[in-house]
Amino acid sequence: MNDFQFKNTTDIRFGKNHIDTELHDAVAKFGSKVLLTFGGGSIKKSGLYQRVIKALDGLEVTELSGIEPNPKIDSVRAGQKLVQANDIDVILAVGGGSVIDASKVIASAKFYQGDPWDLVIDSKKRADLQQLPIVDILTLSATGTEMNQGSVISNPATNQKLGTFGPNTPAVSFLDPQLTYSVSSWQTAAGAIDIFSHLTEQYFDQGANDVTSGLMEGLYRAVIKNAPIALAEPDNYDARAALMWSSTMALNGLVGVGTENSWTVHPIEHELSAYYDITHGVGLGILTPRWMTYILNDATLPRFAQFGRNVWQLTGADEQVAKDAIQATYDWVKSLQVPTTLPGVDIKDDQHFLAMAKSAVQVGQLNHAAFVPLEVTDVVKLFEASMTDENFN
Amino acid sequence: MNDFQFKNTTDIRFGKNHIDTELHDAVAKFGSKVLLTFGGGSIKKSGLYQRVIKALDGLEVTELSGIEPNPKIDSVRAGQKLVQANDIDVILAVGGGSVIDASKVIASAKFYQGDPWDLVIDSKKRADLQQLPIVDILTLSATGTEMNQGSVISNPATNQKLGTFGPNTPAVSFLDPQLTYSVSSWQTAAGAIDIFSHLTEQYFDQGANDVTSGLMEGLYRAVIKNAPIALAEPDNYDARAALMWSSTMALNGLVGVGTENSWTVHPIEHELSAYYDITHGVGLGILTPRWMTYILNDATLPRFAQFGRNVWQLTGADEQVAKDAIQATYDWVKSLQVPTTLPGVDIKDDQHFLAMAKSAVQVGQLNHAAFVPLEVTDVVKLFEASMTDENFN
Repeated sequence: MNDFQFKNTTDIRFGKNHIDTELHDAVAKFGSKVLLTFGGGSIKKSGLYQRVIKALDGLEVTELSGIEPNPKIDSVRAGQKLVQANDIDVILAVGGGSVIDASKVIASAKFYQGDPWDLVIDSKKRADLQQLPIVDILTLSATGTEMNQGSVISNPATNQKLGTFGPNTPAVSFLDPQLTYSVSSWQTAAGAIDIFSHLTEQYFDQGANDVTSGLMEGLYRAVIKNAPIALAEPDNYDARAALMWSSTMALNGLVGVGTENSWTVHPIEHELSAYYDITHGVGLGILTPRWMTYILNDATLPRFAQFGRNVWQLTGADEQVAKDAIQATYDWVKSLQVPTTLPGVDIKDDQHFLAMAKSAVQVGQLNHAAFVPLEVTDVVKLFEASMTDENFN
Repeated sequence: MNDFQFKNTTDIRFGKNHIDTELHDAVAKFGSKVLLTFGGGSIKKSGLYQRVIKALDGLEVTELSGIEPNPKIDSVRAGQKLVQANDIDVILAVGGGSVIDASKVIASAKFYQGDPWDLVIDSKKRADLQQLPIVDILTLSATGTEMNQGSVISNPATNQKLGTFGPNTPAVSFLDPQLTYSVSSWQTAAGAIDIFSHLTEQYFDQGANDVTSGLMEGLYRAVIKNAPIALAEPDNYDARAALMWSSTMALNGLVGVGTENSWTVHPIEHELSAYYDITHGVGLGILTPRWMTYILNDATLPRFAQFGRNVWQLTGADEQVAKDAIQATYDWVKSLQVPTTLPGVDIKDDQHFLAMAKSAVQVGQLNHAAFVPLEVTDVVKLFEASMTDENFN
């Protein structure tokens, strides 16, 4: 097991309706000037916005709405102006990964006088900056941002979608599975695939160890089992709760401790999202089974066999278990009723394959530390293999 | 999934030799007056004491040594005098669960003018007290105290061994698996069984959920696999590392979130340790398979079947898998070369069975919230069943 340091101070409030009784104090503890961030109108339709405003009674609330999926640097720029102009004390982010991700960078940008895209390109610049405390109310189970330091921000002007890390995790995260009852089938599926992919990025690792492997195998099984239940019964509390807590646990740092933690599929998918603005989780679901097939070899076989046995609960000889596990991964994605090919998300030609592959290899350092290092030509082949379903049953 | 709040701010430094470079600052951050607590002379023999003293160069160090296994209230009383007389800023605990447990209560007792046993009997009294920060260097993988708020303290004068909870987890915990190379086979086995039991207390729970069940199943497998390796090869780093991190993860609060978290075997074992001062983990290893046999019924069968499949990787019909899993548990304990009956730890008659059973039911509230509620007569039967191996193969 590699050496590691782990500390995560996020205060999790998990369960039903805690915002109505606990949100005010959780926010007010950090000051009276609050930036409330959210996406579109869905939280007004659902009544969540009204509950939040009621809970914030007595505090000075400034609003930043319209933060989009694959959050754009322009939202961060708008937030920077608001936190500086209003001398904001604390940000309350209400939404999914996009709203929380953007809010984290806004929280750093208060203390930066330049363009916040500088902070995305170079996380080191954020390390020395203060960061406003974030309180969040999660409405989508997917990214794990509710308990980690990361954000992913897109810059459409440059076709870049980059990860950035601040010094702090959110101060307080309210996780109420009921708030995800109204999440669409599409977003529920994409979120579940994102969780699955976070596990996959950390599970297929040169520094895998027994402890974190076992933890991840458990989370995998919880996601695999509960995603179809949540699709079939959107208001099944236990299924929504399992997805929500799995999303947090899959990426709060714990299941990756002691590993190399070098990711492959995410950097590749970020290119698809950056160029085509597709749903992140759907892109991951398309790429993952192709990537697995591509890297299955004698050296990786034991890991795939363990994946098949402990995650998919398959039995048999290593080779067969490994292949069946990859097919099972594909089948699970397909069962969630999302497209399983690039043409399915309207990427119908190879126009940007080379540019995207080059960028993925460079940004993700895929030819260095990855579980199986990939060159540009390998990534192009993954995109090509993603044009059709023909390699799966 | 039940509602829960989770926050754990312990800063974990896991790996080789971090104390030599990081200990000074980790301690000095909290002040210059340090109480160094430890057990017997083993840390002097191993050279760890000398490394610690070197790292603390420049700080004012007061020492409290001689903290025994099943730590006694008298050690806490002695520590209370020292922290008050020397106006200590921070406690550095070097040792296993006993040293850290005692140090946590000493950390509260600085701010209490009465007998610290009051604080053990009534944890509520500690909630409002300040608590000195604890830095610890763990030398035994077992209790999980390095990342939780709990302590277990014994009072030989009253035959009581009670759990108590302070407001804080340790501030910084140094986990260097190399420091456990010299742990005896006996203590290695007892520690592994303690970890196994912590999982069992939380796994067999009326409020079990998919996420934490999966996490625990992974930790179970890591402990089951690595304990025999550590016994056979005491300086196998990865095996020691797996046991160490499993011990922390099994009881830092995470795998029990959203459950009822009502324990059974620990309260019963605490009676054995209180009356006979036996090694806690060995007592747990004796009691656990009997308890499992005793509570296996139609209602609990599905849980035991899941335990058999996902932990012991057994296949077949539920009834057989459940029975085989209990036998496998017994076999694993036995394979660790510790006694598997009460006579094996020199408890040769039933003299205290009734008194211990009454106390266990009362202290552990076993007839209320347990996975399967137990009355005094049930606990007596468990003790009786523990007199012989005859119900196992």
